[in-house]
Amino acid sequence: MIKFTTAGESHGEALVAIVEGIPTGLIIDVNSIDLDLARRQKGYGRGKRMNIETDKVKILSGIRHLRALGSPIAMLIFNRDFKNWADIMSPVLEDPGNDPLLRPRPGHADLPGLMKYGLKDFRDILERASARETAARVAAGAVCKALLKEFGVSVMSYTSQIGSISVKNMSIDEKIFWDSVESSELRCPDSEAEKKMKDLIDEAYSKGDTLGGKIMVVARNVPVGLGSHSRYNLKLDGRLAQALISIQAMKAVEFGEGVKLAELFGSKAHDEIFYNKSKGFYRETNRAGGIEGGMSNGELIIITCTMKPIPSLVNSLASVNLKTKQLAKAEAIRSDICAVPAAGVVAEAAVAIELAKALVEKFGGDCIEDIKKSVNNYKERIKSI
Amino acid sequence: MIKFTTAGESHGEALVAIVEGIPTGLIIDVNSIDLDLARRQKGYGRGKRMNIETDKVKILSGIRHLRALGSPIAMLIFNRDFKNWADIMSPVLEDPGNDPLLRPRPGHADLPGLMKYGLKDFRDILERASARETAARVAAGAVCKALLKEFGVSVMSYTSQIGSISVKNMSIDEKIFWDSVESSELRCPDSEAEKKMKDLIDEAYSKGDTLGGKIMVVARNVPVGLGSHSRYNLKLDGRLAQALISIQAMKAVEFGEGVKLAELFGSKAHDEIFYNKSKGFYRETNRAGGIEGGMSNGELIIITCTMKPIPSLVNSLASVNLKTKQLAKAEAIRSDICAVPAAGVVAEAAVAIELAKALVEKFGGDCIEDIKKSVNNYKERIKSI
Amino acid sequence: MIKFTTAGESHGEALVAIVEGIPTGLIIDVNSIDLDLARRQKGYGRGKRMNIETDKVKILSGIRHLRALGSPIAMLIFNRDFKNWADIMSPVLEDPGNDPLLRPRPGHADLPGLMKYGLKDFRDILERASARETAARVAAGAVCKALLKEFGVSVMSYTSQIGSISVKNMSIDEKIFWDSVESSELRCPDSEAEKKMKDLIDEAYSKGDTLGGKIMVVARNVPVGLGSHSRYNLKLDGRLAQALISIQAMKAVEFGEGVKLAELFGSKAHDEIFYNKSKGFYRETNRAGGIEGGMSNGELIIITCTMKPIPSLVNSLASVNLKTKQLAKAEAIRSDICAVPAAGVVAEAAVAIELAKALVEKFGGDCIEDIKKSVNNYKERIKSI
Amino acid sequence: MIKFTTAGESHGEALVAIVEGIPTGLIIDVNSIDLDLARRQKGYGRGKRMNIETDKVKILSGIRHLRALGSPIAMLIFNRDFKNWADIMSPVLEDPGNDPLLRPRPGHADLPGLMKYGLKDFRDILERASARETAARVAAGAVCKALLKEFGVSVMSYTSQIGSISVKNMSIDEKIFWDSVESSELRCPDSEAEKKMKDLIDEAYSKGDTLGGKIMVVARNVPVGLGSHSRYNLKLDGRLAQALISIQAMKAVEFGEGVKLAELFGSKAHDEIFYNKSKGFYRETNRAGGIEGGMSNGELIIITCTMKPIPSLVNSLASVNLKTKQLAKAEAIRSDICAVPAAGVVAEAAVAIELAKALVEKFGGDCIEDIKKSVNNYKERIKSI
Repeated sequence: MIKFTTAGESHGEALVAIVEGIPTGLIIDVNSIDLDLARRQKGYGRGKRMNIETDKVKILSGIRHLRALGSPIAMLIFNRDFKNWADIMSPVLEDPGNDPLLRPRPGHADLPGLMKYGLKDFRDILERASARETAARVAAGAVCKALLKEFGVSVMSYTSQIGSISVKNMSIDEKIFWDSVESSELRCPDSEAEKKMKDLIDEAYSKGDTLGGKIMVVARNVPVGLGSHSRYNLKLDGRLAQALISIQAMKAVEFGEGVKLAELFGSKAHDEIFYNKSKGFYRETNRAGGIEGGMSNGELIIITCTMKPIPSLVNSLASVNLKTKQLAKAEAIRSDICAVPAAGVVAEAAVAIELAKALVEKFGGDCIEDIKKSVNNYKERIKSI
Repeated sequence: MIKFTTAGESHGEALVAIVEGIPTGLIIDVNSIDLDLARRQKGYGRGKRMNIETDKVKILSGIRHLRALGSPIAMLIFNRDFKNWADIMSPVLEDPGNDPLLRPRPGHADLPGLMKYGLKDFRDILERASARETAARVAAGAVCKALLKEFGVSVMSYTSQIGSISVKNMSIDEKIFWDSVESSELRCPDSEAEKKMKDLIDEAYSKGDTLGGKIMVVARNVPVGLGSHSRYNLKLDGRLAQALISIQAMKAVEFGEGVKLAELFGSKAHDEIFYNKSKGFYRETNRAGGIEGGMSNGELIIITCTMKPIPSLVNSLASVNLKTKQLAKAEAIRSDICAVPAAGVVAEAAVAIELAKALVEKFGGDCIEDIKKSVNNYKERIKSI
Repeated sequence: MIKFTTAGESHGEALVAIVEGIPTGLIIDVNSIDLDLARRQKGYGRGKRMNIETDKVKILSGIRHLRALGSPIAMLIFNRDFKNWADIMSPVLEDPGNDPLLRPRPGHADLPGLMKYGLKDFRDILERASARETAARVAAGAVCKALLKEFGVSVMSYTSQIGSISVKNMSIDEKIFWDSVESSELRCPDSEAEKKMKDLIDEAYSKGDTLGGKIMVVARNVPVGLGSHSRYNLKLDGRLAQALISIQAMKAVEFGEGVKLAELFGSKAHDEIFYNKSKGFYRETNRAGGIEGGMSNGELIIITCTMKPIPSLVNSLASVNLKTKQLAKAEAIRSDICAVPAAGVVAEAAVAIELAKALVEKFGGDCIEDIKKSVNNYKERIKSI
Repeated sequence: MIKFTTAGESHGEALVAIVEGIPTGLIIDVNSIDLDLARRQKGYGRGKRMNIETDKVKILSGIRHLRALGSPIAMLIFNRDFKNWADIMSPVLEDPGNDPLLRPRPGHADLPGLMKYGLKDFRDILERASARETAARVAAGAVCKALLKEFGVSVMSYTSQIGSISVKNMSIDEKIFWDSVESSELRCPDSEAEKKMKDLIDEAYSKGDTLGGKIMVVARNVPVGLGSHSRYNLKLDGRLAQALISIQAMKAVEFGEGVKLAELFGSKAHDEIFYNKSKGFYRETNRAGGIEGGMSNGELIIITCTMKPIPSLVNSLASVNLKTKQLAKAEAIRSDICAVPAAGVVAEAAVAIELAKALVEKFGGDCIEDIKKSVNNYKERIKSI
């Protein structure tokens, strides 16, 4: 059973991620984790903080000589900027009496968090609510990607929309597509759209405004039968939806054709079933996005996530001072203008974690060798249907 | 800790729902459960099965003299039609040797389920994958609604789109709106749209086709602070997304303005914060749909779900015979043409269950009396901010 | 992931057990469940209720033509005596105004339950706290035993002590031992001890008193490596301890030599490791009771449970009337004099459920056929060490 | 919902503990955590390692200016000796080719772990299976103790037996008792017994042998009604049993009079109920150990744990070389002679964590202030019965 746990405040000393249940024998290269951390930090439209931090993971446990031990893998991501925050965020020093944050930002956890938790300074909320936490999820996701890779499964993402600018229709089945995603500052495969997106980001920047958008997550080579129709809380799509919506600023998740399916007739909304000897059973369409009945069906898993614009604006929104109860501009907290490309990397991590969980659930096994045998036996059984 | 578990096959003897963690002293009227079961069965465009069944719940445990005992509440919903299926579905009789179902239906669990579970007859899958299971969820949801009601919280839904027909903009804050929803055969508040939807359903019927659509779920009076920003798996929106996407045929879930938020600037995408003495802190917009930072913020919780068209078509889709591997029309299984109105009732249940869970998690308490005191103390503390 | 859930009051209409996660293809014979239900009802020293009830399970779901469907298995056990309790326990009728139970029984949930849950009549507690609930656990256990049996694993129990009478040392490795257990009214293999135990029960009966004792649970053929050392909540012994102590009236659990290990030197307290070609690695002692480092080690799993005397005495203990606050004899609720033999059958169920959980966790798999391949591959890998 | 997660190998760079769900406003003094870490390291009969390490906790998150933030509390405990193990345990360096450990120690996870996880060097198992991990649990326990303290609840322990030497009967209700426990090198309140225990430890030392024993854990002032009779997995005793048996080397757990209850008549085995105005309902005995029906009953919670002798002996036990299959002395791994006093501190932590979980479960609440109001309301309600 794979589980992950994160800890850490945005300006605390370090983020922590613990991943439990990774099978022994898996080779985990720290560079592959750092690579995903770096991918999360890229992106035209990011704030200055991205320059301060070059996130690197430090592995504390669970791996020995590059191989998973079967014990919990603990990872730290230090905050490079911590020296400037050591007093403000110290766990062990008395409160130095800094001014509390009093003007909560609409769209953030600030106000509901402060109410729920009985606090006076909403820094106590924002430090954990911040999307900085997603660096820990990306580290956990990179470990799960390494596991999935052993079974030929990959999880990728790209930016399909920023503000009003969408990418044109493109085939996601070609290497050139994904190369252009990785080389794009916005993780956008359509260079024309990318140019317009940058212009829009520049416009937002000049107005002290922000932007959201959409990302597509694609998982390739997922074996048939992850998740289950038999219990509501085992359904793969439900679990992926939870994982994705739990990412900061995500407001919608769509599987396959998503919201467009509402307007179609049934005859145009499903993926008819075909068979030939070499492929076995296959589909010629993928409107379902690779999940039927709460289970992977062997096609690409395709998910669209909508990210709202970042709610920390230089040109702050209207708010109220908690003490005086007077109208006031919301606290201005340094932030990005657009973090959609980064969110794609986080979404990959979220999907990779859920797929790895479902894989280990289905195939059991404590060591890679045993799981490989189970997976191969399964694939042979299915081929013989 | 509220938990629910369901069991039961579509043509089995009965569905079972067990709800754990309901506080003592809650009055649970069996009629209120039956009412929701009846609401789930309504709807223009439903198949003949809806006429056979008039679902009634039978309570086996956890309630004594109308009051919750704090012990698990077990409920049965008998399948009225079971006598015709007693042999086919018997747990205790040997297989009478009926022909297996061999032509899996695209869009259903049939094919991936059969592969995953190593079965020969996909009836063994469809019986559990069927949306019939949602009757058990509706019963569990009705119990949770009774709990929420004690705290002034209500969960409602309406049909906002069927196929290409959407409702016009209407104020959901008026009683007349909800009255018209409940009196509409399609749970649609816009009578003009409803008429067009019925025509579309008639058209689908005549073509042997099916339709999906969209539903809106609205939760009113939810206290601030359900869910938490502090852990990815406590976020209220993530949990609601899981619960809703786990409903059969749901392909997308959107919070507040949902997918539209992708195209807006930040300055137009959030809900500014205001204050006056009588209301306390409040908003004049609700683009967030009542959830910020993974917590309820005191506004209406508003969620849109997209349901795909039912994948069981009279005019069956292309499939393959599992034995012969020849192309064949998919098995024709009796079904509805459009079940969007019913799905709304199921979505209410899913949301009610998650809200009840989060409420008990936040306020603890084993009896209604204790929880009420906690909630009142909390509300007073918040007022005094 | 195997889970089980129970519901039901002692004098309610029925108990319910739902077992989730049983793999497809497992043959489940309703008679084997009924057999364990009957074994739970036997025993010299049981009250009259055992004559009223002849528990039989009714399967509602999850099994079709004797084979598990992979969906939740719901089972009912009707209370034969319910007609006499229909009004007192009705979920749907108003309170007929019977006298509440006011004199809580020491040693039962009566008083703490009433306080915790804010109730006035401790029948509302005792109905669920009663060991009647264990019939549902036995049914769930019988399903798990059927699963274990496919892998050659069996779980058995015997009475090793009642009151001050203990069995002599006997070899548990012989068929005759277990035959004598099953044919004994007290599930006691030592006929001399059994005779003395019966005398003691007669003595207790004549005094209006009760007795407890000890049971031994033995699991045979458990594969090496169930449970894990890597996380505190995966350790097999911890999980078994939880399952066993959660059985009504259990006050102690010991693994292997148990409490005796406290007084030994290390040189006498462990099981040295040997090897020969036919057996592979093996032990000549089993002081550990088959679990080392939180994992099964391939030897017999041996657990001793201590059951306190039943706290419902005909010659009632001192208590207090909740209304008057005056000293009073505790309410006299019909009960057994000694239920140790029954508790052994319940303990078998508890152990079988945990072992089945751990087995499916380790080997994954959704159908018996796949799991068998995994188990066989694993056993071969181990042999080749 | 309080949860805790640990990570870390015995000779890795650091142990990690994450505690989730601690309410805001709780003051957490790092010294109180370090104090428990130091208590865990004391004890006559400990190995040399205890001199190398002086465990200190480093808090990474979840606390700001001494107050809990409501976010996960991550703590590190660095291994002072790591510099000598940096290569052997490095996560990121290739295997330097040291000799693997090949002669598994009876009584440890070595052999079953190696089989289960498909490893070649049982260092890969022992590093996580080692009781070193309990330092992380003690840190988590200290945080939970701080929470419990706010509600007047304390958890203490003492050594009641080492080898064949037991303490005399003493009243645990006096301060002098606990003072003598804390000042004793063996955490033993009976100075005569302590002297004999030391002699026995000296004898074991001279023979290259080890010792186990028994510890008593006592929780004071636990409110009535933690845990629940209503579900098998909510019972407080079951949960405590799991937590305690999951501690390395624990082989038995007993509640109240424990195994002695087997031999008593019911009339002598329970705690009769009394009432007076000042105390409310009370007992004059505590054979149940403070738990009835799976719930705390307001009396002291008293638990006895049996620890087996440490299985790492200087005078090693018989084992087998994994490569040659020849009989061989088990690998000699540096260890303690007797760790019973330390285990008491770990057991306190395990109990404190479970009680804190159950408390937050019952009373909900996200901030100390809210929980206090709930607890006070509850206590008043109970008083008024």
